[in-house]
Amino acid sequence: MLDFEFQSPTKMILRRNAIELAGSEVKRYSDTVLLVHYGDDFIYKSGLRDRAVKALEDAGLKWFELPGVQPNPLMSLVYKGIDLCRENGIGFVLALGGGSVIDTSKAIAAGYYYDGDLWDCYLGKGTFDRALPVGTIMTIPATGSEGSNGSVITNDKTLQKRDIMSDVLRPVFTLMDPEMTFTLPRSQTVNGIVDMGSHVMERYFSPMEPVNDLTDRLAEAIMVSVMENGRKVLEKPDDYDARADLMVASVVAHNGLVGIGRFQDWASHCMGAPISGIYNVPHGRTLSVIIPAWMKYVYQDNIARFRQFAVRVMGVDPELDAAEAAAEGIKRLHAFYKEIGAPTTMAEIGITDRTRYEEMAKAACNGGTIGCMKALGEKDVMNIYELAEK
Amino acid sequence: MLDFEFQSPTKMILRRNAIELAGSEVKRYSDTVLLVHYGDDFIYKSGLRDRAVKALEDAGLKWFELPGVQPNPLMSLVYKGIDLCRENGIGFVLALGGGSVIDTSKAIAAGYYYDGDLWDCYLGKGTFDRALPVGTIMTIPATGSEGSNGSVITNDKTLQKRDIMSDVLRPVFTLMDPEMTFTLPRSQTVNGIVDMGSHVMERYFSPMEPVNDLTDRLAEAIMVSVMENGRKVLEKPDDYDARADLMVASVVAHNGLVGIGRFQDWASHCMGAPISGIYNVPHGRTLSVIIPAWMKYVYQDNIARFRQFAVRVMGVDPELDAAEAAAEGIKRLHAFYKEIGAPTTMAEIGITDRTRYEEMAKAACNGGTIGCMKALGEKDVMNIYELAEK
Repeated sequence: MLDFEFQSPTKMILRRNAIELAGSEVKRYSDTVLLVHYGDDFIYKSGLRDRAVKALEDAGLKWFELPGVQPNPLMSLVYKGIDLCRENGIGFVLALGGGSVIDTSKAIAAGYYYDGDLWDCYLGKGTFDRALPVGTIMTIPATGSEGSNGSVITNDKTLQKRDIMSDVLRPVFTLMDPEMTFTLPRSQTVNGIVDMGSHVMERYFSPMEPVNDLTDRLAEAIMVSVMENGRKVLEKPDDYDARADLMVASVVAHNGLVGIGRFQDWASHCMGAPISGIYNVPHGRTLSVIIPAWMKYVYQDNIARFRQFAVRVMGVDPELDAAEAAAEGIKRLHAFYKEIGAPTTMAEIGITDRTRYEEMAKAACNGGTIGCMKALGEKDVMNIYELAEK
Repeated sequence: MLDFEFQSPTKMILRRNAIELAGSEVKRYSDTVLLVHYGDDFIYKSGLRDRAVKALEDAGLKWFELPGVQPNPLMSLVYKGIDLCRENGIGFVLALGGGSVIDTSKAIAAGYYYDGDLWDCYLGKGTFDRALPVGTIMTIPATGSEGSNGSVITNDKTLQKRDIMSDVLRPVFTLMDPEMTFTLPRSQTVNGIVDMGSHVMERYFSPMEPVNDLTDRLAEAIMVSVMENGRKVLEKPDDYDARADLMVASVVAHNGLVGIGRFQDWASHCMGAPISGIYNVPHGRTLSVIIPAWMKYVYQDNIARFRQFAVRVMGVDPELDAAEAAAEGIKRLHAFYKEIGAPTTMAEIGITDRTRYEEMAKAACNGGTIGCMKALGEKDVMNIYELAEK
């Protein structure tokens, strides 16, 4: 096991109407709060925004509001949030929404204390060690940002999509009401399933040395459970237990536990990010296209690991020849994506020509290589984009 | 899923010589610290005590010391620790040792602020909501106290063994150096393996409703991994990766994650506690005797759950008839305990007659019933003690 330091302090509270606890939970930290959300029709018509506000008011909190977060959230809104917090001495940022809202909230929380342009931190040119406390009301299990140490933001001007990571960004609580996800559009449920699975995979697909048996098995448990519960909620959207399981899975898939003490391979995320940035494709939809293609490209150099995945996660016959088993596991993952209606080809996410592959590959590699199962350069990335066409 | 609230803020730091970080980690919280340990030959001769002290001194901390913790730790030492902390305005309790030392440290931490006799809290007659921060230097993966919210203490006068539980007792960090466990006596390694497995089992053995697929699978992952790594370290005591896995397993087996949102059955712990209290048998050794007997006694009312355990954890053929598979799973667990040299009969833990069964059963049930797979009264408990004779 590699040396590691790990903490996941986020308090999870799961129950029906968990949103009602927002006020009392925030109040442990501050009397003023910024409520960040999408500001779309759904958040108002569903009553979510009003229920959140009521919870804050019932607890006697002074609240401010920042609507307008978009998928692939933008730095311009972050700046607006930082200004709002500074002008009003706000002491807490409450995210009502999915990963985009949470990542925006975390950025605001870090920017509040940061002296300079926060984007410098996303560029690796600045560091921070403080942030306002952030809490979340989880509306979709997907990005895991509700328990993670990261924030991914896109710069409106340069279209660069970058991240910052720090334990000070970990939300202090996440409120989870499974019923709140019963009415999620099917496509969002699907994106979430793919995204959660990918967070585990990118940690799990790692060289076989050092031997990390425990987290291998925890990762496999999560992958199997996400697929199983994913099928259940697509079949029966109001399956409370399955929705609840997916909410918890979202947290444990991405809080870092399954990645402790091992090399990690985030090549698929790196290759998906420029697709989101340039074509504005939701994160989850890039992954179901990229991951199987990436697997096909790298598995032959890592047969043992892909065989283990095939047997333990995808139920492939352990008696099969190792290489055959490995290939079969990839085939089954691909079939699972198709079964749940996730896109698996570039065309399905609206990319019908190769004109921007080079630009995307450059952005993915950022002047170096990506991944550790097999270090990938720009040429490899372009090959994988091509593999993802069919 | 049942409603739940869960947090596990303990920071895990794993690396060789992790003990050297004790000073800098304590210093985040306080300039004064009480070092609690067994005070036995080993702790001095191994150099552990001196290495801990050096780490504290290197960080410029003012340190005090409380040696003398025993297995099944005693309330009298807790009182002594509370006095020491109060007299010297100590702001942190650092446990160097296993569960007994950690539980003592937690009790001192809670007692520091408690106005009255802390034992009242163990009796359920008092409550507390504050404690000094506690950190641990883990010397054995077993009780999971390094990440849990509980403290189990025995009252010297009454021989009652009771617990308190509160999130304020969760250690803020645990330092894990796998090499520190290379030289553990074989019997202690074995006790630890049994204990960790049992923490997962007592949460896992729960009614099939509500359906908690994710934590079922996480629990199964931990149980399989503890057995696999257990075998490895007994074969090769200096297997770094396997020792490391067991250390992490100790934390995740008992920090509460696998128990969220479900009914839990702690009957085996309840039945083991009076054996430890009366006969002074190490906790882990009571469990390998009690658990298989308990399983035999309750499985026929819970075939589906025991079948799942048998198939997913013990590798029993899923084609077998359910009841047969369930029974076979229990047989294999029993065989595993024997294989690693854990006791599986009352005689092996020094109990050769039934004279104190009634007293033990009364203590286990404490006037009510225990367990939820099957609610057990005193008569049931005595039946299980008898089943545990062979």
